[in-house]
Amino acid sequence: MNIVLLSGGSGKRLWPLSNEIRSKQFIKIFKNDAAADSEDKYESMVQRVYRQIKATDKDAVVTIATSKSQVSAIHNQLGEDVGVSVEPCRRDTFPAIALAAAYLHDVQGVSEDEAVVICPVDPYVEADYFETIKKLWELADKGTANLMLMGINPTGPSEKYGYIIPAAKDEISKVSTFKEKPDMATAQKYIDEGGLWNGGVFAFKLSYVLNRAHELIDFDDYADLFSKYETLTKISFDYAVVEHEDDIAVLRFSGRWQDIGTWNTLTEAMDENVIGEGILNESCENVHVINEMGVPILVMGMKNVVVSASTDGILVSDKEQSTEIKPFVDAIDQQVMFAEKSWGTYKVIDVEEESLTIKVTLKAGQRMNYHSHDRRDEVWNIISGTGKTIVDGMEQQVKAGDVITMAAGCKHTVIAETELQIIEVQLGKDIRVSDKHKYKL
Amino acid sequence: MNIVLLSGGSGKRLWPLSNEIRSKQFIKIFKNDAAADSEDKYESMVQRVYRQIKATDKDAVVTIATSKSQVSAIHNQLGEDVGVSVEPCRRDTFPAIALAAAYLHDVQGVSEDEAVVICPVDPYVEADYFETIKKLWELADKGTANLMLMGINPTGPSEKYGYIIPAAKDEISKVSTFKEKPDMATAQKYIDEGGLWNGGVFAFKLSYVLNRAHELIDFDDYADLFSKYETLTKISFDYAVVEHEDDIAVLRFSGRWQDIGTWNTLTEAMDENVIGEGILNESCENVHVINEMGVPILVMGMKNVVVSASTDGILVSDKEQSTEIKPFVDAIDQQVMFAEKSWGTYKVIDVEEESLTIKVTLKAGQRMNYHSHDRRDEVWNIISGTGKTIVDGMEQQVKAGDVITMAAGCKHTVIAETELQIIEVQLGKDIRVSDKHKYKL
Repeated sequence: MNIVLLSGGSGKRLWPLSNEIRSKQFIKIFKNDAAADSEDKYESMVQRVYRQIKATDKDAVVTIATSKSQVSAIHNQLGEDVGVSVEPCRRDTFPAIALAAAYLHDVQGVSEDEAVVICPVDPYVEADYFETIKKLWELADKGTANLMLMGINPTGPSEKYGYIIPAAKDEISKVSTFKEKPDMATAQKYIDEGGLWNGGVFAFKLSYVLNRAHELIDFDDYADLFSKYETLTKISFDYAVVEHEDDIAVLRFSGRWQDIGTWNTLTEAMDENVIGEGILNESCENVHVINEMGVPILVMGMKNVVVSASTDGILVSDKEQSTEIKPFVDAIDQQVMFAEKSWGTYKVIDVEEESLTIKVTLKAGQRMNYHSHDRRDEVWNIISGTGKTIVDGMEQQVKAGDVITMAAGCKHTVIAETELQIIEVQLGKDIRVSDKHKYKL
Repeated sequence: MNIVLLSGGSGKRLWPLSNEIRSKQFIKIFKNDAAADSEDKYESMVQRVYRQIKATDKDAVVTIATSKSQVSAIHNQLGEDVGVSVEPCRRDTFPAIALAAAYLHDVQGVSEDEAVVICPVDPYVEADYFETIKKLWELADKGTANLMLMGINPTGPSEKYGYIIPAAKDEISKVSTFKEKPDMATAQKYIDEGGLWNGGVFAFKLSYVLNRAHELIDFDDYADLFSKYETLTKISFDYAVVEHEDDIAVLRFSGRWQDIGTWNTLTEAMDENVIGEGILNESCENVHVINEMGVPILVMGMKNVVVSASTDGILVSDKEQSTEIKPFVDAIDQQVMFAEKSWGTYKVIDVEEESLTIKVTLKAGQRMNYHSHDRRDEVWNIISGTGKTIVDGMEQQVKAGDVITMAAGCKHTVIAETELQIIEVQLGKDIRVSDKHKYKL
């Protein structure tokens, strides 16, 4: 099976755990019962979905369609085997799917005659969902229809989803029509008519979407499409493709399916009330604590509340009201305090006017870019591990206790042999992430 | 006026802002409208009380009776002029008052014939309270009674206080009897009888309490009493003195008087709902945020809730239930992450198995002890200010950007010329506060 997971942009709805550079799908919040190693007790949405796909079809070819900013986190969490179709910028789902299709065909060598499933990266589902996905892929591969969709059996009327009205009540049926997100009364009417939720899952032969892409966009191949990606018009796959197609069939799915986009829905999917250090007194009811800080959280006498803390901030919210978080978070003007990269993590631990102190964790075998800064000096205090630094061409073995000073302008990098932890002190009048020149070694 | 403020022990009832080494009276939480400098917008209980005393009587001689652990914080917040009677250990109020009396007489040279007022350091009151205190002192000084007490006009029945039953309804009256903390029905009965709350304020001539001290304790002078302090029996001033005295009068006080010992009562005294970075959405009611972390707190849809965050932890509590915090905090086994000292502050910013990173702020003109450690190396990264380091006798001028490394065993200190900020990285297998040898320079 070929599957493309659409990994959406940065989100603030799960602040303080998601931010401009850390999307919700990378937050490690779900208990991974399959994990033997206690280190990996929790997994992220993207890890969970990837693990579930591989459990359904160990030979599945998985490609993540996403922006450049997520590539590090993807490899960090899923390893190097997963394919990544990198969108140079955000252009909505049709260009993203067209680019991923070209990537599969031109880079991965997938045949035009093979089917591909497109699926969001963030549904909270069980194994039966991916069994249905596999069946959807097989139906598309057999040529059952030009376009196969998954229709989710509604658990009740909802204003949050688009509706698919099937022509018949069969498990697999032609689609009669599509409906946009309705109000509650209309939603009930659609359900009475046998309507299904549109979960954003499509399957088709690669040739189908490549042909449609060539009709709408003037490009030669993957490299060409990639190079002109910024010039493309933003348009969704629904508007560009689905609305113009008559030969569409829908496959029903009736298992667990949760769309996790807010603290309210996310905490519903959590197996435990507390992740990280947290204490709830006995009068707490339906309280969830997600704590990424290294200090305890004590909660007393709360009901239906989520408490979440990270280096970016602290949220204390009534669960229902947590869906209205966005304008408040938009108004917070803050620097990113934590980031997960392919090479490890960094965390800002102290901020002063003319200095910034950062804890850097570099995974074994990983390295920083060879780089310099114009307007700041830096000091590395190695606190654990072993590795090698290169400063203006001079190599040096380093271990815990070593201190390396680098004046502005000086080229430097560090290579971790074992996992390296470094307290980096930056000093300068105008410290910015953008003050960085990269060099080849 | 001579006034002795009893500054009680460490408390966990205002965790995470109070802890083993930081008592509630030092938390800067009250708006200081008298302050011109925006830096000092908030003051602590001890600062507020000290300022109010000086406003009532600019020549007041103020002595704080407290334990060794508070001396740094007292000088840090009140300056060097305030007298401090240091209790070598905690032995309840009678030994503390006896020691303070001996200190006033033998160290400060206060005459035996002068009166002294004893007052808790943590009432939340207005100027009229200290006007009444001054009057109480004058009454004692005139010899109105052996023992003068302040009786607080009850605002309603309460189980939290002892009661003074006056012999008459006059502003100043002989005391008929004392009553221990009653149940609510009995409290109402006391109030019907004209009972007043016992606010723990006493005034007497210095000779009176010194005589009583010599009757109960075998000692020569202050130095002698100080040296045998640990051998003294724990006993309250009420049991040791008040219960045995017949010549007691009470002075009524009817102004604002709040006993601030829990988050519930403390937030009632706050002028603003948010101290530090905090955002409340419009559906919050009676919510208080006290945030000492450098990151924002967003609160949505909460009612009657206190949220407090410091480097020690985060509390989210229903205000009424916040009075039951102690057993939960007792169960938290944590290292002290922040401390205010006479020389400045330190804050733990990173904890690893074999390293600890600390931000030290040394006030201009202040210095560390000259000291060494057996089991850890240290690195100082100067991030702002100028000063001088002495390492194994070698002096060196230092400024922002300088790095000083000190191996285990090496003697070191730093002296701040301007305010110095240092990121100190400690490295070793068994890092403890107790691993410290002090030397003379």
